[in-house]
Amino acid sequence: MGMVGAGQLARMTCQAAIGLGVRVRVLASAATDSAAQVCVDTRVGDHRSIEDLLALASGCDAVTFDHEHVPGPQLDALEKAAVPIHPSGSALRYAQDKLAMRRRLGELDVPCPRFAPVTRLADVTNFAERCGWPVVLKAARGGYDGKGVWVCESAEQAARVLAHGVSLLAEEYVAFDAELAALVARSPFGQGAAYPVVQTVQRDGICREVLAPAPGLPLRLARAAQSLALRIAAELDVTGLLAVELFQIDGRLLVNELAMRPHNCGHWTIEGARTSQFEQHLRAVLDLPLGAPELVAPQVVMANVLGGDDGDMLARLHHVMAADPALKVHLYGKRATPGRKIGHVTALGSDLAELRDRAASAAGYLRWGNPKEAATPSPAAAAAPDPAAARSLPDSASAPSARDAT
Amino acid sequence: MGMVGAGQLARMTCQAAIGLGVRVRVLASAATDSAAQVCVDTRVGDHRSIEDLLALASGCDAVTFDHEHVPGPQLDALEKAAVPIHPSGSALRYAQDKLAMRRRLGELDVPCPRFAPVTRLADVTNFAERCGWPVVLKAARGGYDGKGVWVCESAEQAARVLAHGVSLLAEEYVAFDAELAALVARSPFGQGAAYPVVQTVQRDGICREVLAPAPGLPLRLARAAQSLALRIAAELDVTGLLAVELFQIDGRLLVNELAMRPHNCGHWTIEGARTSQFEQHLRAVLDLPLGAPELVAPQVVMANVLGGDDGDMLARLHHVMAADPALKVHLYGKRATPGRKIGHVTALGSDLAELRDRAASAAGYLRWGNPKEAATPSPAAAAAPDPAAARSLPDSASAPSARDAT
Repeated sequence: MGMVGAGQLARMTCQAAIGLGVRVRVLASAATDSAAQVCVDTRVGDHRSIEDLLALASGCDAVTFDHEHVPGPQLDALEKAAVPIHPSGSALRYAQDKLAMRRRLGELDVPCPRFAPVTRLADVTNFAERCGWPVVLKAARGGYDGKGVWVCESAEQAARVLAHGVSLLAEEYVAFDAELAALVARSPFGQGAAYPVVQTVQRDGICREVLAPAPGLPLRLARAAQSLALRIAAELDVTGLLAVELFQIDGRLLVNELAMRPHNCGHWTIEGARTSQFEQHLRAVLDLPLGAPELVAPQVVMANVLGGDDGDMLARLHHVMAADPALKVHLYGKRATPGRKIGHVTALGSDLAELRDRAASAAGYLRWGNPKEAATPSPAAAAAPDPAAARSLPDSASAPSARDAT
Repeated sequence: MGMVGAGQLARMTCQAAIGLGVRVRVLASAATDSAAQVCVDTRVGDHRSIEDLLALASGCDAVTFDHEHVPGPQLDALEKAAVPIHPSGSALRYAQDKLAMRRRLGELDVPCPRFAPVTRLADVTNFAERCGWPVVLKAARGGYDGKGVWVCESAEQAARVLAHGVSLLAEEYVAFDAELAALVARSPFGQGAAYPVVQTVQRDGICREVLAPAPGLPLRLARAAQSLALRIAAELDVTGLLAVELFQIDGRLLVNELAMRPHNCGHWTIEGARTSQFEQHLRAVLDLPLGAPELVAPQVVMANVLGGDDGDMLARLHHVMAADPALKVHLYGKRATPGRKIGHVTALGSDLAELRDRAASAAGYLRWGNPKEAATPSPAAAAAPDPAAARSLPDSASAPSARDAT
């Protein structure tokens, strides 16, 4: 199987492929990429180069993606070369272009925040008259981990975002009760499998914790989220994984984002589900029957490890392993630049508060080498939006805000 | 970390290393070896060549082994080059030389079958006078998967084995109630961790099933087996994993074999224990704190997949995955020659009979593509020795018998 991109998602896919006896070839941007470090068949090249993509695909039974950045014409060229790509270019378009996604979901009567394409300040202020401030401005393409999302309180703030000159859409600000994610797999044959719905906890636009299953989520909403995700996968003809990020508000669900690949909201499945999302993606892309998505423990908590200072990771790993021998640590082989996702930890058990404490303590220790970040927010605090983060207005297009997660 | 050998044990160690962010270099005998297919830093060479071993070790923090075949002088040379090797040559000797192992365990008052070195037929008949027929003859070095073990009913049969000209020891034939295995890890720091004791089921000298925890094993014996294994690890100064294969007979335990590496009796730990044996071996060899060895399900069953006919493995995999979405399949990337271990499957749950049926059905299907081998022996039958297998006398030194398992 060929995989475009060689980040941690490709790395963990390679790891799962070893178990299935599947050979993976990755297209890395550099030999030091996370997956390039562990993939025997690494090609270094450019995901925008048709030549490099065709070389990746040559001899592969199928090609899939670690990110959404391959442009449409290049996807077309790959498909014309008669290499099955999963998801197809026509599906992937809706994960690449937020405006196309919103319009298509609208046609499907999938509940979404109200939105409008905006090119001028008047478009934003008109939208605010209808939906109120704050207005969320999103880059139609290329955002991730909160990049490309701005929560604007006023026309002045919106004007500064418009000045970046990127293609934008406006969305109503949703004061959600919780952020959820419904992860499903769909095979070319058409088989579907839905993981338990999880709650994601973001800070500064980056996913910090995933709680599986989503605590306190009414069964009715959990089932609705799974059905919605399976329906979107079928309607958009998604093959492979589909992660649907959702807002839960007043007993309703609104779709926030779509991703068509393994996703941060599913890292907990490596130990916490019978079939990990990475194995599931391989199975789906290779049109093998899907694996059981059930939880293997009553409660699973995943916390991302972000880069902090440039300390001695081996010493930190030593301490974390000594402090919590049952915790599962995953490191991606990435340099620890501040705020970068360099790994994750997973705790399994039955006491949610204890698991969150263990996961957050370990993630904080791996980041800073001291318990600076060890304190866990209470479940109540996590279930509510973080107003400080959600209302910040970064000055640059690359600064994070509180809405997106990869 | 450097690893000598590139079989499936190294392959699964490489897989675990990806999660920990540990880089593994393997010394493979060929680029097509199981681990060589998945290890970015593969060196092809000879495990008996000091040059190749030193090249493997260069730049590694530690070196460990996927097999016991590196000769003593080469181990000495590695250690003199100031590369930590785990286990050390002085420990590994007892996994390489069955006579040395038996003598050392005798000094430690570890219960073993009675034994004697034998060079002439008179040695065997004298031993038989003391201990009775059948007599088990074992090659002192180099046996695995039943190779190098002969159960002899008579002097004539013993004479045929002696004619092979290999260094032998005689052991009393133990009509065991069950074969057990106690897998422990020990770090250079001296920390120990013991996995739940398992029952192993061999057929034709090859491990076919592992039942975790060993069904019906009295707690007293389970604790005794774990203590014994931890004591042996400490006394022999084993670093890394130690698998102690045991006979259970009349409420007593006798040590059959030792292995100082990840072992077939521990493959169930990948999904069935909080810390897999492969991660545990890495942690031990790198002197990191050991992981929790606890079971994560009430009962886990592993069945080896042996090579059968040369059918379409992808089609078989498809059927097995469709039939049992919760089963975990592991394939080693090895060509399916008859009887060769080419993979394993693991089933987790609470009903032992159901899990054994599922695992055996899948392993049989992957082997033959039909349910020829799908029937599961009853637990009672499995707990008793298989007289047909145990009493066979293969004609050649490479033919399997019923005593050893890797």
